[in-house]
Amino acid sequence: MAEKSKVLIIGGTGYFGKFIVEASAKAGHPTFALVRQSTVADPVKGKLVENFKNLGVTLLFGDLNDHESLVKAIKQADVVISTVGIMQMQDQTKIIDAIKEAGNVKRFFPSEFGNDVDRVHAVEPARSSFAVKVQIRRAVEAEGIPHTYVSCSCFAGFFLPTLVQPGLTAPPRDKVVIMGDGNAKAIFNKEEDIAAYTIKAVDDPRTLNKILYLRPHKNIYSFNELVALWEKKIGKTLEKIYLPEEQILKQIQESPIPINVILAVNHSIFVKGDNTNFEIEESFGVEASELYPDVKYTTVEEYLENFV
Amino acid sequence: MAEKSKVLIIGGTGYFGKFIVEASAKAGHPTFALVRQSTVADPVKGKLVENFKNLGVTLLFGDLNDHESLVKAIKQADVVISTVGIMQMQDQTKIIDAIKEAGNVKRFFPSEFGNDVDRVHAVEPARSSFAVKVQIRRAVEAEGIPHTYVSCSCFAGFFLPTLVQPGLTAPPRDKVVIMGDGNAKAIFNKEEDIAAYTIKAVDDPRTLNKILYLRPHKNIYSFNELVALWEKKIGKTLEKIYLPEEQILKQIQESPIPINVILAVNHSIFVKGDNTNFEIEESFGVEASELYPDVKYTTVEEYLENFV
Repeated sequence: MAEKSKVLIIGGTGYFGKFIVEASAKAGHPTFALVRQSTVADPVKGKLVENFKNLGVTLLFGDLNDHESLVKAIKQADVVISTVGIMQMQDQTKIIDAIKEAGNVKRFFPSEFGNDVDRVHAVEPARSSFAVKVQIRRAVEAEGIPHTYVSCSCFAGFFLPTLVQPGLTAPPRDKVVIMGDGNAKAIFNKEEDIAAYTIKAVDDPRTLNKILYLRPHKNIYSFNELVALWEKKIGKTLEKIYLPEEQILKQIQESPIPINVILAVNHSIFVKGDNTNFEIEESFGVEASELYPDVKYTTVEEYLENFV
Repeated sequence: MAEKSKVLIIGGTGYFGKFIVEASAKAGHPTFALVRQSTVADPVKGKLVENFKNLGVTLLFGDLNDHESLVKAIKQADVVISTVGIMQMQDQTKIIDAIKEAGNVKRFFPSEFGNDVDRVHAVEPARSSFAVKVQIRRAVEAEGIPHTYVSCSCFAGFFLPTLVQPGLTAPPRDKVVIMGDGNAKAIFNKEEDIAAYTIKAVDDPRTLNKILYLRPHKNIYSFNELVALWEKKIGKTLEKIYLPEEQILKQIQESPIPINVILAVNHSIFVKGDNTNFEIEESFGVEASELYPDVKYTTVEEYLENFV
């Protein structure tokens, strides 16, 4: 069996990045995490970094804004996975510059992990947010950097614990607000599973220069179906309040940041159906649960069981 | 009386930017808003742009990533106010480059409108978020661009309608979660007032190369005082749940984006007291309600009256 590629994660101490670091290390890839020196002493992220070391991850000190540190880190890896957050999204041009200079990267995964941004129908402020990811895609392609874009649709941990009711701390037991008519299909994947599929793709020629979609069939639900599943689990019928699109747009307009961004992303997913409203074509995409049937993913039904 | 400066707002269709555009136009400044061509047709922001036109605002089409459009827009103004959102924060280096090239700008207000980022004690992910604003400050200063940083502490519209209970849609009437011991003093200013003070500063030599702090004395409250004020208004005592710092740090660590950012910002404000835990010194700052006593600001007490 071929040796496993060396993987560098940039943004590894972020909400999603930590799952990628862990999945990479556990899959036996020599794993490197770029972290800022200051992160080690941070009360929130310091413990995470400790945990990385316990998993055998090599910490490389550096910063997106320190070109030399970036090039040096990238030269130690074969594959670069960026999981930088919303604020560093645009700064990934600096990673692209460093990858060009380093010259050794076999695969780059820019920070995606959501909708397929080339196929969304979003309103502002989500539209601009998605547009930044589009720009990064085009920059990666213009430089001819081998890449994979992971389009995983919804993080389960973000949407399911509240049944897409922003602000709740548990799924609702009396009433539920449903965006639009509740019929658009969305896809919910557990963060650990998204990370597992991503790491599987690292050395896979079938995912080269392709979008890797995560559409495990047991995780595709319309809002109405999701509510019905929850009702069945708790043995109770909820009051359903349907929010017309016009009202959603008004809410987006009037809400402060970041609530407006969350609402506009939800509008794209649950009203426009942007997780699922197109077919995956061979020319641009592959589907993860087909490529890697050995990944035993957590189903939405299993996930919700934790909240009954 | 001297003619009023021409003001260009970059980020004017954002949550906070629209207040600045309106305040500038209403104060009689020839007002320009840089907008993307696509924004005009956006279901959410299109109406806002219509409203700008009704106020006599001149729309200039352009984009942060289109250097020529930026220089051209800036050349038409005397003062540039950036209200770009969290995602374009770093991109303000592009505004700085364009201001340098244009060569005519008398004052630049980078996107701040929160904590004084040079004097915060934040944990991740808020720390990195604040650090970007610090970088922009240093870049502005390095280029010798005349500037004012507006440090307005908390947007009232973001914190007061829920009494800092993320997820609620109205202030609580049974129980309230208080971060830390509830004694750190925070400052809550209404968006319209923040915009009014900012526009006052535009042509004021006293605010040149200074931080303009908004500390109107009727808007300074500890969490405990805020809860007591609300209890008095509704004539009812709330159950108080005090959240120890250790538990807050754990919540930040475990929450998905953007909840973790919100929690870490709240930690900086309500546990560390970063709105108020330092004195304003003449060498670096001035206070808005002292400079402009004619601005009749909305007090926290008046603001909360709307929710009784």
